[in-house]
Amino acid sequence: MSDSDSLAKLAAVIESRKPANGGDPGASYVAKLFDKGTDAILKKIGEEATELVMAAKDGDAQKIVYETADLWFHSMIALAQFGLKPADVLAELERREGLSGLQEFAQRTGKG
Amino acid sequence: MSDSDSLAKLAAVIESRKPANGGDPGASYVAKLFDKGTDAILKKIGEEATELVMAAKDGDAQKIVYETADLWFHSMIALAQFGLKPADVLAELERREGLSGLQEFAQRTGKG
Amino acid sequence: MSDSDSLAKLAAVIESRKPANGGDPGASYVAKLFDKGTDAILKKIGEEATELVMAAKDGDAQKIVYETADLWFHSMIALAQFGLKPADVLAELERREGLSGLQEFAQRTGKG
Amino acid sequence: MSDSDSLAKLAAVIESRKPANGGDPGASYVAKLFDKGTDAILKKIGEEATELVMAAKDGDAQKIVYETADLWFHSMIALAQFGLKPADVLAELERREGLSGLQEFAQRTGKG
Repeated sequence: MSDSDSLAKLAAVIESRKPANGGDPGASYVAKLFDKGTDAILKKIGEEATELVMAAKDGDAQKIVYETADLWFHSMIALAQFGLKPADVLAELERREGLSGLQEFAQRTGKG
Repeated sequence: MSDSDSLAKLAAVIESRKPANGGDPGASYVAKLFDKGTDAILKKIGEEATELVMAAKDGDAQKIVYETADLWFHSMIALAQFGLKPADVLAELERREGLSGLQEFAQRTGKG
Repeated sequence: MSDSDSLAKLAAVIESRKPANGGDPGASYVAKLFDKGTDAILKKIGEEATELVMAAKDGDAQKIVYETADLWFHSMIALAQFGLKPADVLAELERREGLSGLQEFAQRTGKG
Repeated sequence: MSDSDSLAKLAAVIESRKPANGGDPGASYVAKLFDKGTDAILKKIGEEATELVMAAKDGDAQKIVYETADLWFHSMIALAQFGLKPADVLAELERREGLSGLQEFAQRTGKG
């Protein structure tokens, strides 16, 4: 399975966990998050970002991978909550890269 | 180009921006972040996670995609800082999914 | 000057930096934040929270104090943006404590 | 009771919740956090910062006060974890203000 397939397949599993699609909040972590709603999902984004920061401060490669996976996973739940897909994010990343090698990012250095 | 290729290619561009690989902090946003070091990269993770939360609260689909791309992009810079790759994250996501349909996530509901 | 006076006085300085009150975005950091608007202020909350987390991971007492001051300071700008004051927050903290020694917090352990 | 007293008193209650000071992780939310350790405390900082951001996006004054109280409260637990006190933070805020009306903050506009 290619990586692309894995993101798309994971997105499909997430989609199937929506209560409207038959997901059971009593049995599925993802269905429970959808059931709690947008704020519960977004709170996890803040939490997982913090956990990634802590894992990186520890310099623990395995934890960094694990927490990045958590962060991306919960981002995908947020995307699904708004009818969006990881393919949309990848397209945006490709679009930028197409702008002559991340030049767009270079132009945004003053933004923060 | 498949999505998988796009993540791997973006990771390669990021890798090439490391000052040790010839990246120029004066010309490249990514090289500048690497030059500032781990804390500067991690600060962006916290910042972009907050921006994703705000975009989602606005319910602005285009901004949600844009900020998720920002968050994933800066996560990839953090991965690179520790010699890791998006493929490691995708493997972790696949590994979990292989655990009978996200059952692992369901088991972690009490973790937060 | 008592600590209470210092928070109230700082809040008054922040209030005076609102462009509507004569604050100059070209000369004052706080006035510039108010001028940029709510999202710019909230982005700083996410950023300063991340910096506090990093300072604590470093175990650097001076940085922890500095970043907590930054976080509280920007929280006070957010409060001011919504016509609120640190006294409101202190009243809420006192109210909880009055609930028999933080019992309320104990009751909320399941919330996260 | 002055506001200053309320922060100092709350800090004393927090201090008494440390397991080393007799706090019972089974009965007290704060004692449980201390028992879990630094990462658990810092994770709450990231979480409460995110909740404040969401409350502010909702423009809900009562929730903004509540979440700011949560954020300050957990910052005080982090301070206690490192032997620090809210008085240290207030002293830092006063010190800055003493630098001719927040001029220091103005000088830091480029920092982000």
